[in-house]
Amino acid sequence: MYIPTFDDVETARARIEPYVHRTPVLTSTFMNKLTGAELFFKCENFQKAGAFKVRGASNAVFGLGDEMAEKGVATHSSGNHALSLSYAAGRRGIPCHVVMPRTAPQAKKDAVIGYGGTITECEPSTSSREAVFAEVQAATGADFVHPYNDPRVIAGQATCSLELLEQTGGLDAVVAPIGGGGMISGTCLALSNVAPEVKIYAAEPKNADDACRSFKAGHIIADDAPETVADGLKVPLKDLTWHFVSNHVSDILLATEQEIIDAMKLIWQRMKIVMEPSSAVPLATILKNREAFAGKRVGVIITGGNVDLDKLPWMKK
Amino acid sequence: MYIPTFDDVETARARIEPYVHRTPVLTSTFMNKLTGAELFFKCENFQKAGAFKVRGASNAVFGLGDEMAEKGVATHSSGNHALSLSYAAGRRGIPCHVVMPRTAPQAKKDAVIGYGGTITECEPSTSSREAVFAEVQAATGADFVHPYNDPRVIAGQATCSLELLEQTGGLDAVVAPIGGGGMISGTCLALSNVAPEVKIYAAEPKNADDACRSFKAGHIIADDAPETVADGLKVPLKDLTWHFVSNHVSDILLATEQEIIDAMKLIWQRMKIVMEPSSAVPLATILKNREAFAGKRVGVIITGGNVDLDKLPWMKK
Repeated sequence: MYIPTFDDVETARARIEPYVHRTPVLTSTFMNKLTGAELFFKCENFQKAGAFKVRGASNAVFGLGDEMAEKGVATHSSGNHALSLSYAAGRRGIPCHVVMPRTAPQAKKDAVIGYGGTITECEPSTSSREAVFAEVQAATGADFVHPYNDPRVIAGQATCSLELLEQTGGLDAVVAPIGGGGMISGTCLALSNVAPEVKIYAAEPKNADDACRSFKAGHIIADDAPETVADGLKVPLKDLTWHFVSNHVSDILLATEQEIIDAMKLIWQRMKIVMEPSSAVPLATILKNREAFAGKRVGVIITGGNVDLDKLPWMKK
Repeated sequence: MYIPTFDDVETARARIEPYVHRTPVLTSTFMNKLTGAELFFKCENFQKAGAFKVRGASNAVFGLGDEMAEKGVATHSSGNHALSLSYAAGRRGIPCHVVMPRTAPQAKKDAVIGYGGTITECEPSTSSREAVFAEVQAATGADFVHPYNDPRVIAGQATCSLELLEQTGGLDAVVAPIGGGGMISGTCLALSNVAPEVKIYAAEPKNADDACRSFKAGHIIADDAPETVADGLKVPLKDLTWHFVSNHVSDILLATEQEIIDAMKLIWQRMKIVMEPSSAVPLATILKNREAFAGKRVGVIITGGNVDLDKLPWMKK
């Protein structure tokens, strides 16, 4: 297992700069009053391909030697990594093979195809997606870019927190959603090097709380196919992301489905931005743990904005 | 009839600066490819109180002498001017009386009350709202701040286009929605003074095309209670806004209800911002009139973001 270093982050930053946005940081008087904290929302929903995942995907794609690149890249993903890898491969002009659960939002499938990616569908479980993926990779010889358990991907995601720190001029804490742990690991990698005093909190859906249980148990616990509205956060930790989570995260905070939906709607309503349920988990946990954040300068990572506008969670009742 | 001058705009800009945002200008590779133009979206949906109307309302409220201010301000409005005047009055600490159609979105009513405004309801027609308003004004003695036919309001709205021009470094055209004509009049007032070469287009719902018919006829034609999803654009031109529209607008372009809804959804989906149906009319007309805009640098004013998330227009079918 190669653990990425801060040098890898600096290399990634220079490498991906032509292909990604330096996304804005938004603030809201309303949200500050509501939480008692000073919140800085890093808007990766405005990122290329609609999510932070394009940082890690671009780092992997543009770091490949020419010979390897010719065979293309392949991955399995519940959505945003698929879009991002397709986008990055498209920019480099190489093939991209994606294994996606058949239940993934249609908007995400359409976007993968729009960027030139090729989709093979699997069942919505970790075991099925890994089996189908093995077949695809064997057939194509493409380079596997794991959605999160890949040092190139983690080094790419780390560039997000570096920007956030520069844009805010210093923070007391950062809260980011946790699924497989790619964004959190990147955050740990960046901040432990440049601002080790900043506390790092992971925010997780109560319905998919495997990271929280792993954190308490001291070893990885994986669930197969948990159900949550935060569809980007269903996947389990792996060895590389576990390394960062177990060493650098201060706490993992949980939110219920209703708390996530309420926080999402509140952000849409008051901040006028379109973002995914996964991105609302941090605000949901901050609202539940007021005392931990009141009076603090807190970075909140809005991880993505790829939502199916025909299936908004508050419409389902 | 006092016609506001560029001096009034500069006074307004200095006066309202502490109370309004200099909103960002967003661009989108996708939208540029789609239209063949280079589009610059001025995001007044991120404005205080969620709409550009806070510019004119703040200019009126903070321009009042202390004695007049004590009695407060009053208005009738289909929504955003009501929010904006309530916000501005709240910042100054004076009363704000609002006459609103009973059919106005609940989100807008809640927001008026949240800012400290007092609502009196009327029927959803121009005639009813004017009658009810006369009663309210007689009872309170508050200063009438008309939603658009007021030189203080138009001078305030003009600050939006000044910023847009500075932020883009020059444009060939600006497209803004037209209802009563306040934003368009401000745009005319600003651009005819600082950049008279920029063409000004007004974008109007076909279902509420009174401004377009007025423009062609050469005199004001007013409809009572037209029906359109763009609920901010139902009101007719008045003498002061007619002055600017008839003298400075290049053309008034129309869009159907479905074109407006499609353009709105496209902006939400691709640009990840929450904005109102009214704000989608400019993009809808640009998509219909490609040849007029292709190859040009075009400013598009996203006028507001106060939408009822439980009643999105593409959910109604």
